[in-house]
Amino acid sequence: MTENTIIEAYHITETRLGHHNRIVQPLLTDLYQITMAYAYWKSGKTKDFSVFDLFFRKNPFQGEFTIFAGLEESLKFLKRFHYSESDIEYLRQTLPDTIDDEFFDYLSKLNTNDVTLYAVEEGSVVFPRVPLMRIEGPLIIVQLLETTLLTLVNYASLMATNAARYRMAAGDLKLLEFGLRRAQGPDGGLSASKYSYIGGFDGTSNVLAGKLFNIPVKGTHAHSYITSFTDLTELKTCMLIPKAGGEFRNVSQLAISWRLKLTSLFKVVSMEASDGELAAFISFAVAFPDGFMALVDTYDVKRSGLLNFCAVALALNDLGYQAIGIRIDSGDLAYLSNVARQFFLEISKKYDIPWFAGLTIMASNDINEETILSLNDQGHKIDCFGIGTHLVTCQRQPALGCVFKMVELNGQPRMKLSQDVGKVTMPGRKDVYRLYSESGDALIDLLQKSSEEAPQVNQKVLCRHPFEESKRAYVTPSKVEKLLRIYWKDGQIIEPLPNLSEIRNKVQASLRTLRPDIKRNLNPTPFKVAVSYNLYKFLHDLWLQNAPIGELS
Amino acid sequence: MTENTIIEAYHITETRLGHHNRIVQPLLTDLYQITMAYAYWKSGKTKDFSVFDLFFRKNPFQGEFTIFAGLEESLKFLKRFHYSESDIEYLRQTLPDTIDDEFFDYLSKLNTNDVTLYAVEEGSVVFPRVPLMRIEGPLIIVQLLETTLLTLVNYASLMATNAARYRMAAGDLKLLEFGLRRAQGPDGGLSASKYSYIGGFDGTSNVLAGKLFNIPVKGTHAHSYITSFTDLTELKTCMLIPKAGGEFRNVSQLAISWRLKLTSLFKVVSMEASDGELAAFISFAVAFPDGFMALVDTYDVKRSGLLNFCAVALALNDLGYQAIGIRIDSGDLAYLSNVARQFFLEISKKYDIPWFAGLTIMASNDINEETILSLNDQGHKIDCFGIGTHLVTCQRQPALGCVFKMVELNGQPRMKLSQDVGKVTMPGRKDVYRLYSESGDALIDLLQKSSEEAPQVNQKVLCRHPFEESKRAYVTPSKVEKLLRIYWKDGQIIEPLPNLSEIRNKVQASLRTLRPDIKRNLNPTPFKVAVSYNLYKFLHDLWLQNAPIGELS
Repeated sequence: MTENTIIEAYHITETRLGHHNRIVQPLLTDLYQITMAYAYWKSGKTKDFSVFDLFFRKNPFQGEFTIFAGLEESLKFLKRFHYSESDIEYLRQTLPDTIDDEFFDYLSKLNTNDVTLYAVEEGSVVFPRVPLMRIEGPLIIVQLLETTLLTLVNYASLMATNAARYRMAAGDLKLLEFGLRRAQGPDGGLSASKYSYIGGFDGTSNVLAGKLFNIPVKGTHAHSYITSFTDLTELKTCMLIPKAGGEFRNVSQLAISWRLKLTSLFKVVSMEASDGELAAFISFAVAFPDGFMALVDTYDVKRSGLLNFCAVALALNDLGYQAIGIRIDSGDLAYLSNVARQFFLEISKKYDIPWFAGLTIMASNDINEETILSLNDQGHKIDCFGIGTHLVTCQRQPALGCVFKMVELNGQPRMKLSQDVGKVTMPGRKDVYRLYSESGDALIDLLQKSSEEAPQVNQKVLCRHPFEESKRAYVTPSKVEKLLRIYWKDGQIIEPLPNLSEIRNKVQASLRTLRPDIKRNLNPTPFKVAVSYNLYKFLHDLWLQNAPIGELS
Repeated sequence: MTENTIIEAYHITETRLGHHNRIVQPLLTDLYQITMAYAYWKSGKTKDFSVFDLFFRKNPFQGEFTIFAGLEESLKFLKRFHYSESDIEYLRQTLPDTIDDEFFDYLSKLNTNDVTLYAVEEGSVVFPRVPLMRIEGPLIIVQLLETTLLTLVNYASLMATNAARYRMAAGDLKLLEFGLRRAQGPDGGLSASKYSYIGGFDGTSNVLAGKLFNIPVKGTHAHSYITSFTDLTELKTCMLIPKAGGEFRNVSQLAISWRLKLTSLFKVVSMEASDGELAAFISFAVAFPDGFMALVDTYDVKRSGLLNFCAVALALNDLGYQAIGIRIDSGDLAYLSNVARQFFLEISKKYDIPWFAGLTIMASNDINEETILSLNDQGHKIDCFGIGTHLVTCQRQPALGCVFKMVELNGQPRMKLSQDVGKVTMPGRKDVYRLYSESGDALIDLLQKSSEEAPQVNQKVLCRHPFEESKRAYVTPSKVEKLLRIYWKDGQIIEPLPNLSEIRNKVQASLRTLRPDIKRNLNPTPFKVAVSYNLYKFLHDLWLQNAPIGELS
């Protein structure tokens, strides 16, 4: 193959197999999974039937909810799980040379046909200790899935949760993800775009994410565009045909004359405003007459950027085009947005141009959830936030601690003991039910042994705190939802997978079932995750049976 | 092509073109770069000759140095810069339909042959305001490189810097990166492995990183391996041939008898130690007789894990094998490592097995730079740290704020003004010289206009603080290093690129030129970055000329 053929083949691969498959492969794992696999194989334990739970112990961002994401990518990973020849060759070179050669044959034939994966629906609100996935099958293969599944779920869920929190803070305002340059490299940036969209963002600046995931992409220009012009003589093209057709008109002349007219309203002298900025705006307006959005803070928002923007927007209006609005990337966003809106209103009134009052005001300087909440308190006139660093790095908590724990082996429960109660795992094969009130509020998540009968609508069920004996409650649900569904069995994805925008809707629908006090930013109420009477007894009997009795000496 | 052929082609592509090329492509950018490109094109500014600097304003992690990384990936991106047909098609659908069709023809033929890229050597210590890269060429193409270059440099440099800080804290101890599952998805994990290796780590758990970048991979087993055994009857294989050859011996019998012998030393009764854990250790030792490393904290380090480990290690010793050591993943690491070392020493002495004293003690629970420093203060006996979450998320500061600013256009300087002095950019085409003392210490970085003559060895040069008039110093360098070298010109990488381990060595060599007070963890001394007399004057004249005069009213 020539390099060109390879590149072409690559592009086909890219398109047909999708973004996901490039590096999500069985070697994307920790080496200890493979050394364990060999030791299991060597010990004749490959077919031991195991059940693992994937769950987290604490909601991120000092909040009381998490959004589950990463399921589709996980299922595609299971579907394509296969060690290539070069993988096997690499492992052969890497593992000790005492390894039996048959093991590599075994690995090269390994697939996930004997694995069954249960999961919560992607985009659902989830809580600590609830299994987001339950994975069953031969010990060796389920163990080999651990790291990759955690990698696919951890950041996806963290990012979707972060985005959902921004969405709640911003209410109905538009939210755009601008974080590519501050993410963990190229794919970090792509995952950020994808999962912030799922979490409730309206679009991204990341063009590749737009192409691969069909997410709306947005963007106008940067400060460098503005500073690339120093005065109006540099304008090589300023002619534009009116929207309705006709002769070319000179946008520059129109804008200059509008700027003069506006100086009294803006209480500035025209010469204070930057001519380079005006030239940049004019050239951009000529290039995008229907999409004129201007960055107004390169020199001075009040004395230059706003005036120049309004002059060009009014010139466009003379030709029948409507400008989109402005972006402010520095300074006091609440104050400047109020100033801008005031000018837009006055111009709208003075020149009788109704749409001018509603021009978009976008803000994009180092914004996080707290900034938005604080801007809400101060009163602002922003319509849209562009958010980068804080969103994609999840600065407040840059990792979600999902873990993958064996809970049953060959029918026998397994539990990890720990001095720290929070780290004790729930043993055995379990199911989870979400119980709802008559009004549709989620009341509690109830973990049961899988062998128990499901809770019934309108029947009282006892829910116990898993560790605090005195905390119990009877719940009579109006609706019972079984959270864990089968998604993968016999080598097939057996549930139709929703597209991104359906998952995005699911997030909002799922959040609506939560009481507001659980979702609030400050001191939210924890959502209750309970265990059935049987599971409580099972857990505590096993715990007592296994915990060593300490000895003080 | 069938799916199999595609997959095969993909694997070839994968191998030949390398990890890098999969998603690092011109569409991995912010949309505004492309809208700006169109506006430049439309304004006839495509050939304006531009100079951009890529730099950051503040060192991360409250430190006073940064490691520059990401250069090789950046150069490969330049080399392969090309909009594919499907990219063009996507842009055509995405941009407004008022766009001239010729623009897409123009884009499809665009390459980086007219771009020249200067950069600091990858792996070098760098400082705020120093250009890490200077990129020159036609405005449109240089602007189109911005986001991707920032994406490639920001996280790479942040990660390498973080790793270098851990390396300094850990001294000569071994450091392994274990962060895949907590990184920003699959590629975030790969970048973390690569750049933590460059920064000074000794290896990673990430197998794919090992395969793609030829980084040593390490790993043994997880708690689930231990809990998959409940007692010794589950051991299907415990027979092992001695290292020197001969008859199979029963490791289990040997280990059980050693465990009995050791109980008095450990002051426990044998039954306190978990039989499941012992079975797990035996099976692992049989699978990896030359690589026996055991996780000892599943039940109780002192009363079970250590005793079981020593029993199995002594059994292996009977057959001529040397165990590697233990890993502790919870509890008081300083204390437990001392306890373990004490037992190893006593056993070494009692049974006259010298290597036993030097068994590896590895720690891996939620470790960060401060934990290591605190463990150093407490006194510990750890030989190796496995570090995940804090390393890969760079928790203390999860993003480096590299920016990409136009400093010259068509020979005219450009500068971004700002109320905030720290955000004022250095205008014009510049070079940077690092001046060294006779003993080889880096004294200062000096920025000059490119038109100025380079500072000379043994000749006094005036170095000025860029903003504080009174801060000046004469420096007489014993060595002068020109930091920015040409790496890309006329469509070629023109400097031979070092491999990963050479870059890794460069990091350490570069760090050695810094005085210890600049590198210390607490209140480090800032390294001086100065400007020449000419650049100072140039900057301040331009500043006064362009800054608006405020008016209080």
